[in-house]
Amino acid sequence: MGSFSKPFLETLAGKSSAIPPLWMMRQAGRYLPEYRELRAKSGSFLNLCYNPKQAAEVTLQPIRRFAFDAAVIFSDILVVPHALGLNLSFAEGEGPRLETITQTSELHRLSEKLNPEFTEPVYEAIRQVKKDLTSHHPRTALLGFVGAPWTLATYIVAGKGSADHGQAKLWAYADPEGFGQLIEKLVAALVMHLDGQIKAGAEAVQIFDSWGGELAPDQFNQWCLRPIQKVVEAIRRLHPHIPVICFPRAAGTKLLNFARHIPNVCIGLDTTEDRQYICAHIAEGCVLQGNLDPFALISGGKALDKAVDNILADLQGHPFIFNLGHGIRPETPITHVEQMIARVRMNR
Amino acid sequence: MGSFSKPFLETLAGKSSAIPPLWMMRQAGRYLPEYRELRAKSGSFLNLCYNPKQAAEVTLQPIRRFAFDAAVIFSDILVVPHALGLNLSFAEGEGPRLETITQTSELHRLSEKLNPEFTEPVYEAIRQVKKDLTSHHPRTALLGFVGAPWTLATYIVAGKGSADHGQAKLWAYADPEGFGQLIEKLVAALVMHLDGQIKAGAEAVQIFDSWGGELAPDQFNQWCLRPIQKVVEAIRRLHPHIPVICFPRAAGTKLLNFARHIPNVCIGLDTTEDRQYICAHIAEGCVLQGNLDPFALISGGKALDKAVDNILADLQGHPFIFNLGHGIRPETPITHVEQMIARVRMNR
Repeated sequence: MGSFSKPFLETLAGKSSAIPPLWMMRQAGRYLPEYRELRAKSGSFLNLCYNPKQAAEVTLQPIRRFAFDAAVIFSDILVVPHALGLNLSFAEGEGPRLETITQTSELHRLSEKLNPEFTEPVYEAIRQVKKDLTSHHPRTALLGFVGAPWTLATYIVAGKGSADHGQAKLWAYADPEGFGQLIEKLVAALVMHLDGQIKAGAEAVQIFDSWGGELAPDQFNQWCLRPIQKVVEAIRRLHPHIPVICFPRAAGTKLLNFARHIPNVCIGLDTTEDRQYICAHIAEGCVLQGNLDPFALISGGKALDKAVDNILADLQGHPFIFNLGHGIRPETPITHVEQMIARVRMNR
Repeated sequence: MGSFSKPFLETLAGKSSAIPPLWMMRQAGRYLPEYRELRAKSGSFLNLCYNPKQAAEVTLQPIRRFAFDAAVIFSDILVVPHALGLNLSFAEGEGPRLETITQTSELHRLSEKLNPEFTEPVYEAIRQVKKDLTSHHPRTALLGFVGAPWTLATYIVAGKGSADHGQAKLWAYADPEGFGQLIEKLVAALVMHLDGQIKAGAEAVQIFDSWGGELAPDQFNQWCLRPIQKVVEAIRRLHPHIPVICFPRAAGTKLLNFARHIPNVCIGLDTTEDRQYICAHIAEGCVLQGNLDPFALISGGKALDKAVDNILADLQGHPFIFNLGHGIRPETPITHVEQMIARVRMNR
């Protein structure tokens, strides 16, 4: 098991260490000049996602520069609805445009299988990254990911990002059976996509639920917690040794119930979560990941040092992966990323 | 003490009852045809805020229609920065536009006193509402309010609503001393404005922190919790018998610490808070208010009945005020408000 020399996987297996493993959400992104250069050549964001060589290259860029402990495959959560048959495009500067499904009678338009035209490039990129990591970065682990069913449903129902996800919430209230069918189809598709990523070489997977935290508690249990639980259990059956990270952003007080019902995963904490509360109430037997404020990273200086130190102090002794609490923002100075990394990795 | 026949004030004093008192955030608002009619006549939102007769009228409209247990004075949280000397306007359909302060050197532009041109109309509206309630709705209490220092600061720094409040966050990280001076000036102004509202007849006050929950935990303590604590303590000294409701929206896991440090207030829960967690961990000795999902109210039918019943079941036996978890939305059918009220007030 060469994997046991990888700090990221050791921590996910429950080992705590004085210097936590480190990566950043959106680490392959616009704050890097080498990313912006390749992105400009690719023609569009989706071209970049679906070009295995380019996707592998941007996945590896931050590893070469910063030696992060995890490489997260460059892709997008909307690859899954795309591969289920819904048209997808990204208008420059406007975010995604997705073909919508807004009622039960339209669910037949979702196929039962993932179209390999859209998933195979992801798996091929994973294979290429894995090969490069094995040769050149043997201590860096490879992380696959999907968006959670609720978050994908908000895009499928609205056709784009929306401020309050009112359309999805209203469908879920008015017709929980029909909306539940959409969620079940997504659960099945996500299991297939995670299975494909793991078979291609992903050594751990993260489930991003960007919008589940906004739900009222009963709706959260029904549309965020239980569907994620189903995905996790299915992946456990298929790949018992692959660790799973769940990131139920802004779950807040609902996190306690989430962690109780989905045990033995790593919980990703977003920027707003109170680590001292988390440690007192849910951290027992649970691996944690998070949660530097991306604005502290932009600010740099003493504020950044203090924010890093607070996190390290709060989570000392817990199996813990250092990360941001949200994706790194394009305007972040690279020197601040370097400062953060040095601070996390300094001798303690 | 005529006030002790008012269920809203009895609950705020710590008494629990089988049928909780009831009001709605934004109950004087666009879902009501009588509001839309008066609003159209007023010319602008600010005209309506600053016309005591009209502001009193729209405050009373939902009381006449629904006999709510609290009337919340029709006003806006940005009256305070306006009264401190910053120009304010509301462009139709675009939200507020406020003169900005973005650095310490500009703080001198905030006056030390509130300009009575903008606060007196609020106090006069309160006097008129109080008189009407006393004559016609003797069981309905009158609630004053302010926005919390952090929330006001986000508007003052950005000049308008902003998605992530990045400008305020960056100022707070880069120059905590200067930003702290802005917060201190707001604390002092809010105490003056609450004092004015209470002297005019407000029987309880609510502090709205719409955006504090988005802060990282250490920033939350510094810019949300401590400033609100100062406001509450000052109001307690001036008016020991006036109950205070704090609404730190989306505070999530940070709510535990908030409730510990600001005891003996009513905590307003937003839509996303897990009531069972709250009851298990912080409800002891604390009055609660909340938290029906405004989208359940739009949906109506069985979903609304179930959402109401869940709240009543979770909070049975606690001193508790029924409310929405966020303001009522303009598209909400009035029949659904009637359904909610009947469900809350039915014999139990």
